[in-house]
Amino acid sequence: MQELPTNHRLLLAARPTGIPGPENFAADTVPARAPDAGEVLMETTYLSIDPAMRSWMSEKPLQNKNISLGEVMRGGGIARVIASRAAGIEPGDLVQARLGWQTHPTLNGRYLQKLDLTLGTSEDWIGPLGLSAVTAYFGLRDIGGLRRHDHVLVSSAAGGVGQIAVQIARIEGCRVVGIAGGARKCAFVANELGAHAVIDYKAEENLSAAIARACPHGIDLYFDNVGGPTLDAALEHLRPGARIVLCGRISQTLAAESYGVRNLGRLSAANGRMQSFLVFNYHDRYDEARIWLAARHRDSSLQQKLHVLAGLQQAPIALGMLFRGENNGKLVIRVSDDLGPR
Amino acid sequence: MQELPTNHRLLLAARPTGIPGPENFAADTVPARAPDAGEVLMETTYLSIDPAMRSWMSEKPLQNKNISLGEVMRGGGIARVIASRAAGIEPGDLVQARLGWQTHPTLNGRYLQKLDLTLGTSEDWIGPLGLSAVTAYFGLRDIGGLRRHDHVLVSSAAGGVGQIAVQIARIEGCRVVGIAGGARKCAFVANELGAHAVIDYKAEENLSAAIARACPHGIDLYFDNVGGPTLDAALEHLRPGARIVLCGRISQTLAAESYGVRNLGRLSAANGRMQSFLVFNYHDRYDEARIWLAARHRDSSLQQKLHVLAGLQQAPIALGMLFRGENNGKLVIRVSDDLGPR
Repeated sequence: MQELPTNHRLLLAARPTGIPGPENFAADTVPARAPDAGEVLMETTYLSIDPAMRSWMSEKPLQNKNISLGEVMRGGGIARVIASRAAGIEPGDLVQARLGWQTHPTLNGRYLQKLDLTLGTSEDWIGPLGLSAVTAYFGLRDIGGLRRHDHVLVSSAAGGVGQIAVQIARIEGCRVVGIAGGARKCAFVANELGAHAVIDYKAEENLSAAIARACPHGIDLYFDNVGGPTLDAALEHLRPGARIVLCGRISQTLAAESYGVRNLGRLSAANGRMQSFLVFNYHDRYDEARIWLAARHRDSSLQQKLHVLAGLQQAPIALGMLFRGENNGKLVIRVSDDLGPR
Repeated sequence: MQELPTNHRLLLAARPTGIPGPENFAADTVPARAPDAGEVLMETTYLSIDPAMRSWMSEKPLQNKNISLGEVMRGGGIARVIASRAAGIEPGDLVQARLGWQTHPTLNGRYLQKLDLTLGTSEDWIGPLGLSAVTAYFGLRDIGGLRRHDHVLVSSAAGGVGQIAVQIARIEGCRVVGIAGGARKCAFVANELGAHAVIDYKAEENLSAAIARACPHGIDLYFDNVGGPTLDAALEHLRPGARIVLCGRISQTLAAESYGVRNLGRLSAANGRMQSFLVFNYHDRYDEARIWLAARHRDSSLQQKLHVLAGLQQAPIALGMLFRGENNGKLVIRVSDDLGPR
């Protein structure tokens, strides 16, 4: 490698008060850093835009650490290796990692996972084999204890994790109901993901009544991506032994005051369980999830609809779209067109 | 058996609006019923007074069925067999069952459990071997996943289930903090049960701050007997991987409007679990619990303080005491002085 490329970066410049957007970030360019021993220099191809990013940007203390002002924005994605001083990683390899919002990251090789292209293309690795899909897999199965014939409710059913959760539950022989906002998303959940019923929360005055109609036998498993009033409404319809998977709480991320959940008595009455989790704790089992997901993707029973924006500078805009619910599929940024072998 | 004894009964006469008491019950006397094939006639010796009774009396639909007006009040206890047409059960045997509030029940033998008096006396079987103790055992271990060195918080720590939970956690090498109301109960929890710290919720303006002081390293396991604001305060102090055992919610049983729990986000942030359970689902494993409890009772590391009132007519009064927090130990009614072999 003769010349080092220019690394375009987006740094956290101001903590958001409401929906994050371009005003929270500052762009800069620096020369990419040549890899030290054990390190790898890459070119970012895709970045994933996820709800958790808003909390990383906040000052509230988090288990997996907030981002400091002036730091490169955190984010996972796919990259192509340009130069490597890490054993087993060669130029041209495609890898997955927490790359950050930058075009040319240099990271320690032990944080990288080489893509197994026998499972899917590099685009599949940001889609149906990506971390959102893996999150849905472990959330439903390990945390939710998904069983055949369960009555399953999924909120944010058109979202990155939700759309995979709907499909896994359908594939596993469950009756699945999705909650989404707006006619277009609801049609997607029903027609393309195969949910047995769908609730447009924006069109319903009484969400609990809508759940009662859509889930006439109640709920065995609620996969919760939103928290707040939706969780409260779902609690009213638990069947005995119900499980609630707390995967996200996007309704509360921006709330000025946190919502008081009144129906925990229903969890008690149902002798139910409510559990949160961190997908990173399943790191040793990602392969298991991806082999399962790849097989269902290959036979076309499972898809991941992506909403792709081009160019790193679109990332802050995408984050705002996510929190306004304007995305139409899992949001990803295509950073480079050089996708290497697919 | 020549003559059938008189069966004194207490029937549910009016559903309670607030704290239940004598006004909710009607007394009557009927001849005891001679056992049919498979049945057993008994004389009740002890009845247990439990928080769940209030919900059985209400109109709100329950999984384990409400009591109808005019029906004998439901309640568990210990009895001595007078006459038996059930295989393996003989006159003089001591048994445990859902006897109801009556002096001379006749029940199917399959609902009875013969007391193993090698484990403890019949009084032990309403105390440290009783269902409250068994509830604490499975709640902490199976639902709570109790681990040595856990930081454990127990609410209603002087109550029937709570006092056993405090002691099991202490015996298992955990650091235990109890919450109770009033100086006398708190002294009992600290001095007799061996809690490492105790919080008098009646003396604290800010329960969350009191928990922070008593649990400076946070909470791994919260054994919740009360729900409501106490649960909300405990949620603020969860350690990563925390478990909350929803065992009771006495604070909410009488609440006009159910309390909104604001801190579920802390459960998510801690990747924690919150789970309710029904002790009856552990029926096949009661022996395991009782063998463990009996061994700790025998070596004096575990006790169950009883608050005993004499006479069936005291049962409605005891129920009111329970909900006003006036009891000083697990409330039981000694119905008959004829306790048989002890």
